[in-house]
Amino acid sequence: MTLARPQPAFSAARQQSVAAALRALLPPASILSDLEDTRPYECDGLSAYRQPPMVVALPQSEQEVLAVLKVCRDMQVPIVPRGAGTGLSGGAMPIADGVVLSTARLNRIVRLDAYARTAVVQPGVRNLAISDAAAPYGLYYAPDPSSQIACTIGGNVAENSGGVHCLKYGLTVHNVLRVRMATIEGDVVELGGEALDAPGLDLLAAFIGSEGMLGIVTEVTVKLVPKPAVARVIMASFDSVVAGGNAVARVIAAGIIPAGLEMMDQTSACMVEPFVQAGYDTGAAAILLCEADGTPEEVEEEIARMKAVLEGAGAGAIQVSSSEQERMRFWSGRKNAFPAAGRISPDYYCMDGTIPRKHLARVLTGIAEVEGKYGLRCANVFHAGDGNLHPLILFDANQPDELQRAEAFGAEILALCVEVGGTITGEHGVGIEKIDSMCAQFKVAELEAFFGVKRAFDPPGLLNPNKAIPTLNRCAEFGKMRVTGGVLPHAGLPRF
Amino acid sequence: MTLARPQPAFSAARQQSVAAALRALLPPASILSDLEDTRPYECDGLSAYRQPPMVVALPQSEQEVLAVLKVCRDMQVPIVPRGAGTGLSGGAMPIADGVVLSTARLNRIVRLDAYARTAVVQPGVRNLAISDAAAPYGLYYAPDPSSQIACTIGGNVAENSGGVHCLKYGLTVHNVLRVRMATIEGDVVELGGEALDAPGLDLLAAFIGSEGMLGIVTEVTVKLVPKPAVARVIMASFDSVVAGGNAVARVIAAGIIPAGLEMMDQTSACMVEPFVQAGYDTGAAAILLCEADGTPEEVEEEIARMKAVLEGAGAGAIQVSSSEQERMRFWSGRKNAFPAAGRISPDYYCMDGTIPRKHLARVLTGIAEVEGKYGLRCANVFHAGDGNLHPLILFDANQPDELQRAEAFGAEILALCVEVGGTITGEHGVGIEKIDSMCAQFKVAELEAFFGVKRAFDPPGLLNPNKAIPTLNRCAEFGKMRVTGGVLPHAGLPRF
Repeated sequence: MTLARPQPAFSAARQQSVAAALRALLPPASILSDLEDTRPYECDGLSAYRQPPMVVALPQSEQEVLAVLKVCRDMQVPIVPRGAGTGLSGGAMPIADGVVLSTARLNRIVRLDAYARTAVVQPGVRNLAISDAAAPYGLYYAPDPSSQIACTIGGNVAENSGGVHCLKYGLTVHNVLRVRMATIEGDVVELGGEALDAPGLDLLAAFIGSEGMLGIVTEVTVKLVPKPAVARVIMASFDSVVAGGNAVARVIAAGIIPAGLEMMDQTSACMVEPFVQAGYDTGAAAILLCEADGTPEEVEEEIARMKAVLEGAGAGAIQVSSSEQERMRFWSGRKNAFPAAGRISPDYYCMDGTIPRKHLARVLTGIAEVEGKYGLRCANVFHAGDGNLHPLILFDANQPDELQRAEAFGAEILALCVEVGGTITGEHGVGIEKIDSMCAQFKVAELEAFFGVKRAFDPPGLLNPNKAIPTLNRCAEFGKMRVTGGVLPHAGLPRF
Repeated sequence: MTLARPQPAFSAARQQSVAAALRALLPPASILSDLEDTRPYECDGLSAYRQPPMVVALPQSEQEVLAVLKVCRDMQVPIVPRGAGTGLSGGAMPIADGVVLSTARLNRIVRLDAYARTAVVQPGVRNLAISDAAAPYGLYYAPDPSSQIACTIGGNVAENSGGVHCLKYGLTVHNVLRVRMATIEGDVVELGGEALDAPGLDLLAAFIGSEGMLGIVTEVTVKLVPKPAVARVIMASFDSVVAGGNAVARVIAAGIIPAGLEMMDQTSACMVEPFVQAGYDTGAAAILLCEADGTPEEVEEEIARMKAVLEGAGAGAIQVSSSEQERMRFWSGRKNAFPAAGRISPDYYCMDGTIPRKHLARVLTGIAEVEGKYGLRCANVFHAGDGNLHPLILFDANQPDELQRAEAFGAEILALCVEVGGTITGEHGVGIEKIDSMCAQFKVAELEAFFGVKRAFDPPGLLNPNKAIPTLNRCAEFGKMRVTGGVLPHAGLPRF
């Protein structure tokens, strides 16, 4: 894709004074302001949108985080928090005249309590590093986004990240017990705790997935879970996506909660097979991967039950992994779908809608029908068990109109998700990418509730502004809200 | 207990005008204002605190809920929402010049979807009625507070209720997918949804347990779970509470998540045994009840593992229920601990602290040490698996000083819970009872975050004021907060 590289949009004097104020409180090497140093921060995984920040700050302690927040509050500088920058919705995209607060140097595992099965970590600790540290105790951290080798727990908290095992083990929100965070007003607040319930309002869940709008995470307490003794995966072929979708519904209806339940369509299988040689049945219209984990007896019983359900649902070829190596091979195609898309298409646009499971077949059929309308191919991979779709729209940004067609195709898929009772994002977040779709998803009163909470945590509106929640003005411009006589309902809301 | 019965505290003219405004919008029979009609609403399960309300409203639809809210908003009348009135912390205690909004007539099961395993119910539906309606499909609603025959799902949402099975199946917050609620400003807002994740702020968890301060529930979507094929319970005796506490820790450390893991001390066992004839070992210092549920194979395996762990932890007598009837008998003592306390003591004060499981033995020893200091007995029953203690302090309010001594004893137990890293309430809520203890539990910045969210949902501060979250003024009076030069930090917060 050919990308315009926007130039800085702030005065040199402003940049110098903000950088100087920060350097007075943090080691000078922790503050970057030369364009060659700030360029690496110009985008996250949603690389179509780029903007170098005015300044990058790399605090090494909670005290330094508070110092950055103080300077930004005093000088009215917007702040964009950033983990590893692997996000897919532009949540960490810089603001031209703002500071990027990177958690990269807050990367210490503070404490690991194998007895209580918890770990206390700083926000810049990588997702996989937690499991590595817990491995000697037979424990691991369950959520496993595809980017887990690189992404950080702070970013996971910001986006409420999931992964292929979240059907059984939950999202970030189900695996984090406590968040310690710094507010823009200079307070340090702890949300949640190690007890099952706590008095006061439970704001932990509101914070998790708030995309950096409420505060800066300085410490996270995560649950660790015992590593299952065994895991095996079934790979089953279906001759239509409808049959595959129905098989997913039947597995769940049978009362089975697989450790993973993923589906790929033929386009995806054909796309990844040459790349990873996973042994996928490229003649099948849909492939299901269905995993069981636990004790050997539990796994044997669950594999047998799942196999029976899949056969009853019309599965053609069925293979069950007989070794850990084979299990990893079966998964390799699913886990490499995104890089594989990059091999066969100059560009791709990854969507992230959710739908009630029962509408899986209907939505797949709907997407196939729209492919022709836009003249673009769409490869479909899904966290099928929890109804989270990742359609990959393949396009070439160098061809006239293709980016626009891909975006329109994507918007149509999300509208279809909302129409059947789903949502516009399952796990990638709203960021800047899907902010207009939020106007379709929520009512004014609901957006107002979000703003109210935002105001409670961030009165000056400096934390990651214009991300995640659209202003009512923006929704009005997007045309989803009726404006009577030029006056917005509930006018006078601040612009975050 | 001899109770003062406070008289109404409002002018007759005010009462008449509020009642008339409500009768203009609701059927007249749905509005109660005669003292003989409003008396039954003067307290909840925390019967030491009584106050008849000015008016009681019994709306029968969401429209009528909105009408009640409109009248109260226009006339600046505080509102106390009320389910079945079984709460134990005074959350539903009326305000003298306020309206009690009872959800008793919002008692319809709107929809039950056995395939999606969800039920949509109005807030006045009883907890057990949901399971009764789901029984023909082999499903049930998991959270089972002791009051489940009477308490309503709306009250469960307000208090985030648990039950003896919440270790495995979670609290209300883990079993509710969506709440539809009316705001004081007249909007209807839906929080949560049926998808695993949703964009926007996740305010569902903040709403659940908010004790009626954020809005009035008009509809709840709950998860239903398959009824386990079999359940069996182990009853094990220990010769010290320390040994019992350590056995709990060992069960959890072995990676077992029992369906229930409850502990009673000798005082409790001796108190309930004459009442229910459960067959409890009244010679034991502590009794553990440890339940397994699932398929017959799963239960057999888990019972064997738990038995081995308990034996290894020094259990004396061990019995395993061999029939459903025997299982119910083993549980009957635990479930009847509160009524049994009423038989042997004129009054009792039920505490509800939580602690990290590892400190169970330490806290039990601490409570025993304090018994002598106050000259009062304390019977201990616990949701041991999740560290939720219910010490029952036995006293006689007719004896001089005993109520005061019981309250001081209770406060000391809660302080001990907080000291070891626990909380002042596990599942009964804060209400009016524990509002001062909140000052010990939370920092100013944390209370401010709560207020900010409260303001976002309820700008006029009319919903259940002076419950659940203490004002900073109140904390200052309670002496837990330093007041500098007569000025509160962050003065100027509204008084909710």
